[in-house]
Amino acid sequence: MASIKPRTLSGFMELLPAPQQQMERLMDVLRKTYASYGFTPLDTPVIEDAQILLAKGGGETEKQIYRFQKGDGDLALRFDLTVPLAKYVAMHYGELSFPFRRYQIGKVYRGERAQRGRFREFYQADIDVIGDGKLDILCEAEIPAIIYETFTALGLKRFCIRVNNRRLLSGFYEILGLSDKASDVLRTVDKLDKVGKDVVADILRDDVGLTDAQTQEILAFLSVEGGTDATLASLEKYVGKNETFDLGLSELKTVVRCLADFGVPADHFAVDLTIARGLDYYTGTVYETTLLDHPEIGSVCSGGRYDNLAEYYIDRPLPGVGISIGLTRLFYVLGEQGMLNDALVTAPADVLILPMTEDPGAAIRAAKLLRQAGLRAQLYTEQKKFKQKMSYADKLAIPYCVLLGEDELAAGKWSVKDMRSGEQQLLAPEDAVAAICAGISALDSGSVITEK
Amino acid sequence: MASIKPRTLSGFMELLPAPQQQMERLMDVLRKTYASYGFTPLDTPVIEDAQILLAKGGGETEKQIYRFQKGDGDLALRFDLTVPLAKYVAMHYGELSFPFRRYQIGKVYRGERAQRGRFREFYQADIDVIGDGKLDILCEAEIPAIIYETFTALGLKRFCIRVNNRRLLSGFYEILGLSDKASDVLRTVDKLDKVGKDVVADILRDDVGLTDAQTQEILAFLSVEGGTDATLASLEKYVGKNETFDLGLSELKTVVRCLADFGVPADHFAVDLTIARGLDYYTGTVYETTLLDHPEIGSVCSGGRYDNLAEYYIDRPLPGVGISIGLTRLFYVLGEQGMLNDALVTAPADVLILPMTEDPGAAIRAAKLLRQAGLRAQLYTEQKKFKQKMSYADKLAIPYCVLLGEDELAAGKWSVKDMRSGEQQLLAPEDAVAAICAGISALDSGSVITEK
Repeated sequence: MASIKPRTLSGFMELLPAPQQQMERLMDVLRKTYASYGFTPLDTPVIEDAQILLAKGGGETEKQIYRFQKGDGDLALRFDLTVPLAKYVAMHYGELSFPFRRYQIGKVYRGERAQRGRFREFYQADIDVIGDGKLDILCEAEIPAIIYETFTALGLKRFCIRVNNRRLLSGFYEILGLSDKASDVLRTVDKLDKVGKDVVADILRDDVGLTDAQTQEILAFLSVEGGTDATLASLEKYVGKNETFDLGLSELKTVVRCLADFGVPADHFAVDLTIARGLDYYTGTVYETTLLDHPEIGSVCSGGRYDNLAEYYIDRPLPGVGISIGLTRLFYVLGEQGMLNDALVTAPADVLILPMTEDPGAAIRAAKLLRQAGLRAQLYTEQKKFKQKMSYADKLAIPYCVLLGEDELAAGKWSVKDMRSGEQQLLAPEDAVAAICAGISALDSGSVITEK
Repeated sequence: MASIKPRTLSGFMELLPAPQQQMERLMDVLRKTYASYGFTPLDTPVIEDAQILLAKGGGETEKQIYRFQKGDGDLALRFDLTVPLAKYVAMHYGELSFPFRRYQIGKVYRGERAQRGRFREFYQADIDVIGDGKLDILCEAEIPAIIYETFTALGLKRFCIRVNNRRLLSGFYEILGLSDKASDVLRTVDKLDKVGKDVVADILRDDVGLTDAQTQEILAFLSVEGGTDATLASLEKYVGKNETFDLGLSELKTVVRCLADFGVPADHFAVDLTIARGLDYYTGTVYETTLLDHPEIGSVCSGGRYDNLAEYYIDRPLPGVGISIGLTRLFYVLGEQGMLNDALVTAPADVLILPMTEDPGAAIRAAKLLRQAGLRAQLYTEQKKFKQKMSYADKLAIPYCVLLGEDELAAGKWSVKDMRSGEQQLLAPEDAVAAICAGISALDSGSVITEK
């Protein structure tokens, strides 16, 4: 007697088989792309000592974290992949070579208020390059190339990698004599896209307490039209006034200059002086990536350069640069927008082999041949009517069936049914394998994401 | 100032980059092999409602489980992948097609006493085939083929898939009039390998309370020498006495008969009447897999046929058959035994590109060419002395370096250094790419596991 109603906790994504296949493909593209740039995969525990995860402390994190006792341990589930990386690098400092480049795709946990499209368990896909003491600007310049390759490999075309430099911002606010108000200004300016210029101006004047002149200067600084070149040109007038500003501008120019060599098209890139990201963590280049047709989603791949990865764990500056994709949310949004490519095979198998005689030997051997050709071949094992077997293949959207009855066995051939066209052919085994391979390879040639 | 000593909880595996690469390969082989048999990947939450995970109840599980409150939720971390599968199938019963074949490779949590080689967080790699109401014996017959393919693909040669049938055992004990003592007998007999015949005989007589005749009959039943055929022949004398026994024997014979068609060599297979597995869960064929040279490890891949996957969640019989590999422990043991193939590339990249001129443009473009050929190419980004750059490649065991200095740029060629042989060649880019591809493909041709 069933005694309990099965359910999955709210805020936890659990996919049916077909969308799970799409998710697997998406993760596979990320793994391959990250690996192709020399990032090594890491896998750290989901559970860590709570004291270690919370070394930095901080309000939101502490409220959202899953924390519990087990034995005499004060444990917690990781809420991001950056703190575990910091711990890992500090712990294994002597065993790693720097720059240390790692990717990690893993689940993280945040007990947020459950709401549509927000998850309490979700995948992050992170890459980071960690230096020992210093790290060249070339690392920061390479990041847009990796973002571009990643999203292109997924099938996206209409996206923009927006870049800014935190030194440039800090220097600019120092020039205006606003260093002590920089945090408030950055936080306000960050809302520019959402609330518009006038509201930002009001807040800067009324709440932050800037003069009209300062407010106008900031808005002018942020609002240059005409693309990357015009924006960079507009910054020249501040050169020579502040070392931090000059360094930031020089770094930004290096990042822009390398774009062409890295193969990032100009129309997929923009300098955006409004981007600030986290206030006290990033120190150099910062990145956001937006889908041109879906600005409401916000940034789908963000990150930046930081100076001290692991200051709570090791007395050694470990600068780095990294980006993160919130994979579960991205997948959810892509699904909502109908952007997941449904033409790709999401069936558990490429081909279903139906034994139609009592002895399944021939069917078993056929399955083996198909697997040797790299196909996913499922042997149909049940005693059912022919119609039910075909309906099974249909429901699962398995692209091909191989039927093996007395006639086929006598002729030494296979009947191959293309489930999409309904066409059925009697073929020699080697021809059947070749035909199915060609068909599957055509079906699977598309990308994970399609734009309408 | 570092304020906290970084550490990883005991009982949690956290690998350095090189062994992590080996672990990734191992998982990749499992994913590919399982998929090739038409199993679809699933990913269920790590956290579930504790009431649901513990629907079955039971002592050890309840003690070991990680259970905690969050908000008003009574939550727990999954302790295996079978209970989540049962929940999933019951919840999504109407949306799935049966037989439902899924694989899942995921972390599970058991707060066992920490000891060497025992893990509190560990990967299980499971496959299951679930039927709706019934499931053909052909599914049970296919499992040894999947085990054989999996371990062969990993590189193992010296292993044995041991098979038994629970109906056969039940029927046999019914014939002896021992149905009510079957549990005690099975538990005792399970120790035969460890404690030997005499001790088992003593326990059966003194503790379980069998007669001498019964004890002798059981030991004779279990101890037939001469392989699968001799064992099956020895069972014929019980035919016709008990229906359950006859059904079990007929199933066992079907499994054995299909082996040749499935391509499982006779010397990798044995009928072993001492195998019982869990007492109240499995009902038909049961499997264990042992490494011939490491019997002390115990079974590395086990499972069997069950009649009711999800009885606590749904009023519908869902019979199934499944096997599970304890991946983290297997990986640990293989490492201890020196059985992980160190000849495979475990570096983060196949090739490191060293720009030796101020402008990194040529190096960036070279890296792109190498990636287009499917290689993992890392651009070396730091301003360091040549010796330090080479030492970096050496430490990470990156197989190839491409050096691009003034001479190479002038000649339009690349200097390619094979880091194993020390040999350096000046090659046209297309020849360099081809040479590195060939080299990497040779280095990566071995299997994950090697036997000494």
